Amino acid sequence: MVIQAVLFDTFGTVVDWRSGVVRDVVAFAGRHGLSLDAERFATDWRGLYQPAMENVRSGRREFVQLDQLHLENLRLVLEAHAVPRSWISDAEINWLNGAWQRLDPWPDSVPALTSLKEHLIVGALSNGNVSLLVRLSKHAGLPWDVVAGSDLSRAYKPDPRAYRFAAELLDLAPEEVMLCAAHNSDLAAARAVGFRTAFVPRRTEHSGHQTQDLAPEQDWDVVVEDLRELPSRLAAELRSPVPSSSSG
Amino acid sequence: MVIQAVLFDTFGTVVDWRSGVVRDVVAFAGRHGLSLDAERFATDWRGLYQPAMENVRSGRREFVQLDQLHLENLRLVLEAHAVPRSWISDAEINWLNGAWQRLDPWPDSVPALTSLKEHLIVGALSNGNVSLLVRLSKHAGLPWDVVAGSDLSRAYKPDPRAYRFAAELLDLAPEEVMLCAAHNSDLAAARAVGFRTAFVPRRTEHSGHQTQDLAPEQDWDVVVEDLRELPSRLAAELRSPVPSSSSG
Repeated sequence: MVIQAVLFDTFGTVVDWRSGVVRDVVAFAGRHGLSLDAERFATDWRGLYQPAMENVRSGRREFVQLDQLHLENLRLVLEAHAVPRSWISDAEINWLNGAWQRLDPWPDSVPALTSLKEHLIVGALSNGNVSLLVRLSKHAGLPWDVVAGSDLSRAYKPDPRAYRFAAELLDLAPEEVMLCAAHNSDLAAARAVGFRTAFVPRRTEHSGHQTQDLAPEQDWDVVVEDLRELPSRLAAELRSPVPSSSSG
Repeated sequence: MVIQAVLFDTFGTVVDWRSGVVRDVVAFAGRHGLSLDAERFATDWRGLYQPAMENVRSGRREFVQLDQLHLENLRLVLEAHAVPRSWISDAEINWLNGAWQRLDPWPDSVPALTSLKEHLIVGALSNGNVSLLVRLSKHAGLPWDVVAGSDLSRAYKPDPRAYRFAAELLDLAPEEVMLCAAHNSDLAAARAVGFRTAFVPRRTEHSGHQTQDLAPEQDWDVVVEDLRELPSRLAAELRSPVPSSSSG
């Protein structure tokens, strides 16, 4: 089977969350006369991301949208950074939570998506909710054909239901879908349900201290250093016999 | 409240289903040496569309995707046009059913969507399923920000759940969403849940015999003769006070 769709992890893979969040934390701090370590603030905020989703994945908590998890986490981080709750209005908190809608793409993202889109379905397969992803995609100019937010499947990656849902939504077999991600764990879960896989390292996603996802940890179907290599690499893959899914 | 999103009915409003279906029926008949009245065939096929969805809306049948309803209806129409089932392979039937993915846009559709997309969320709010709409939109070059297919809400318009679901998916109040459609009944249902409304007549949708939807039947918020008027009309609307929703 040939690949019909390439779906992209979004935060970290397609957009640079760190620089965007830092930028808005700096603006927020300036408006409110706060002395915040914006880099540390961004790290701490993102640090609560996986634990918050894990509460949902494990069944300890019913599905809630990522916007809501981000907001809850933001309040925790503000407290941890000694910003008293009473100082900041809900409207301002919501503005800062909207930082995740105002992230910029990595320089190779839009050219790569635009090129791939000529021949394949390109979509977001993200833990973000659709409304967040749509606003982010307008800000960043991401030309998706389809936005598969987690609120559609009500499952957070790497829950296998998230990947299976996306393939079914597109009426495709898992082997016809490729996930492109900067995170080995995401690709491992996608491969386990039968997706094909493409890795692109984003070695500055977590600033200079990054220790994870600097290199591929499995023999992913495609590995590129720059997303703009992906269209030609896929064209080569499509000319060669496609291996059958290992997951059966 | 100002409009944040304009959602479009798709079949008939954005794409010309009749000419596309007729084109593929002609090709199909040619390949199989059949003598088919392609115009009549298209009319008959589309004629089974509302009754098939009504079975779902009424609860007589569980939700099934429009692709499946189209396929069932196609088999009925082939029989009615005296094409014995055994003559045609399933692959060929499926090819013809894919005619709904190969429709062309009306000439004003892509320029209007492209212009609106600069300032607003533009999306499909269609009874088509997402996989059908995504393939159709690639064929027709429709630059949607979001594709709200009926398989997401599992409700067929004018079921009010279809409209409410779309607003919730975008995290918008109904008053922040406008439906644009060529069908008065669709707009009436959208208005009933609080959407704003835009009408564009498509007087050749049903060929020369069209008797319905030649003119607006209510005081829709905006009426245009050509979708390319919509961006400037909305800019004018957005400058004037927005009436509160009549549906409360």
